[in-house]
Amino acid sequence: MKALIFDVFGTVVDWRTGVADMAAEMFLSRNIDIDPYQFAAAWRAEYDPAMEKIRAGNRGYVRLDILHRENLDRVLAGYGLEQHFDEPARADFNRAWEKLPPWPDSVAGLTALKARYAIAPCSNGSLSLMTWLAKFGGLPWDVILGAEIAGNYKPNREVYLASAAALGLDPSEVMMVAAHNNDLASARKAGLKAAFIPRPAEHGPGQTSDLQATDGWDVVAADLQDLAVRLGC
Amino acid sequence: MKALIFDVFGTVVDWRTGVADMAAEMFLSRNIDIDPYQFAAAWRAEYDPAMEKIRAGNRGYVRLDILHRENLDRVLAGYGLEQHFDEPARADFNRAWEKLPPWPDSVAGLTALKARYAIAPCSNGSLSLMTWLAKFGGLPWDVILGAEIAGNYKPNREVYLASAAALGLDPSEVMMVAAHNNDLASARKAGLKAAFIPRPAEHGPGQTSDLQATDGWDVVAADLQDLAVRLGC
Repeated sequence: MKALIFDVFGTVVDWRTGVADMAAEMFLSRNIDIDPYQFAAAWRAEYDPAMEKIRAGNRGYVRLDILHRENLDRVLAGYGLEQHFDEPARADFNRAWEKLPPWPDSVAGLTALKARYAIAPCSNGSLSLMTWLAKFGGLPWDVILGAEIAGNYKPNREVYLASAAALGLDPSEVMMVAAHNNDLASARKAGLKAAFIPRPAEHGPGQTSDLQATDGWDVVAADLQDLAVRLGC
Repeated sequence: MKALIFDVFGTVVDWRTGVADMAAEMFLSRNIDIDPYQFAAAWRAEYDPAMEKIRAGNRGYVRLDILHRENLDRVLAGYGLEQHFDEPARADFNRAWEKLPPWPDSVAGLTALKARYAIAPCSNGSLSLMTWLAKFGGLPWDVILGAEIAGNYKPNREVYLASAAALGLDPSEVMMVAAHNNDLASARKAGLKAAFIPRPAEHGPGQTSDLQATDGWDVVAADLQDLAVRLGC
């Protein structure tokens, strides 16, 4: 094994807190009384349906930044908030996805893993989003792989295969790391190794999904620092 | 200005020494008496003509790794060395380009610049080549841009424009850094800012090209550490 590639939203960073923090700031300055965590969940709920059109071939590839922005417009309309946000405010709001806090173990775990392996995001986020997110949180990636270099979205197999190929590696030389069992199932089907770490707070209190590994993955670790230990880093 | 993108071969790493070191090792174990620096220069001389076919549209984009390998075959044949190198040996030899030493100021200079700007290679090297080269030399890139994400080769303008676009930036928000005046001229024509640093030892003793800035670039610095100082890092 020569490289580890990572799901990012949920696995490496806490998107719910980051988006809710931005929403809270946006709402406070406008005297809007809406639960920012509920808003974050509503925005995120638009994520998969937006990508599905592209995965299914009903729309050409567009960067996640654009999908996030379209989804924001839809969610703002759903809450009846259109008139509170002009174009520049929406562009600022959309940058919430570039300002998501890493989980407490993420930077230390990635730094340890980087000493022995190439590490890269294999996220549905764009090169731009992943770059600025890494700058924000100090994520020490070697290279940014994932959806944009594949021109497709996970869990389509092309994304895993393009990421391995971009490193000049066979899929079996690459391990996908994620807090989502379905992401790992798709990576394994594409020939990659798979490591699961649980993120039981990703969706906030009362999370019911992905609390544990639902298959016999190559590695199951408590978090990214534990993963580094288990991989001998 | 929000990002700096860099030429790599010659500007950040010393390709001549790295390739000659690999050639010397390969020749020693085979009792071949050829000047490894001359061999490195002969291999590198095939670089531009190989890319030119792709830039001119006479061949589709293929990664530089493949061009380097084709060029190696040609140069070995030119020296009458075909029978000394089987396929695995040629693949090993070709990895010389992933093991090039950074210039003494490169890692410190890039690290200082990274604290304030996004930094990325804008090289003709592939994602794979640039990733393993960064691992070898400790180059702290934020993201890898350049030829492969553009599907074209410098100095075609698409490579500079695709690199800025991949960061979500306007070309004027990006500065190209190179030891080659022609690279900077093309970047400037594409709307980027330009910084020159001389690398008078790139081609060894007696170098005559690019000893100094031949145009009024936005910044001229002695090396990458000096560039960081001049940009307030």
